[in-house]
Amino acid sequence: MVALLRDTLGEVLRAERIDRGLTLRQLSSSARVSLGYISEIERGHKEASSELLAALCEAMGVPLSEVLRLTSERVAVTEPVRGPVVVAA
Amino acid sequence: MVALLRDTLGEVLRAERIDRGLTLRQLSSSARVSLGYISEIERGHKEASSELLAALCEAMGVPLSEVLRLTSERVAVTEPVRGPVVVAA
Repeated sequence: MVALLRDTLGEVLRAERIDRGLTLRQLSSSARVSLGYISEIERGHKEASSELLAALCEAMGVPLSEVLRLTSERVAVTEPVRGPVVVAA
Repeated sequence: MVALLRDTLGEVLRAERIDRGLTLRQLSSSARVSLGYISEIERGHKEASSELLAALCEAMGVPLSEVLRLTSERVAVTEPVRGPVVVAA
């Protein structure tokens, strides 16, 4: 089973918000997105639309590419290791 | 204006499918997702749910982290350059 994007994306968005010392209320106000919706996204309960994700990134001053890079890194940790299988002699 | 995730994600998914020599029909069959839906996602017309994205990645044998990494790189190209501004003397 592959990791679900919305779970990890939610974790990353929450971490970025907290890093900036922003409350849900402050982010909700500057991104013009309802507080409840942001909360649902951070907990991986709802999918963020591309427009909403862009609004959150812009309001936090974090590039979307950075959010995606961090999400990619977190997802990679949960993935099975690939590459050549080395069999012990 | 920040890049929209679905546009770039669609481009990356299409490129990964073509790299593997898969037709829309073949991917549709192995991922059990309708051909029209995959086509809409590849063109950035529809948002891919996390479950659907996982199904496409699994069917293509590409890690989700890799799709996200490639998407991050493509998005970064369209973003304004950040960092210290150097003013000529």
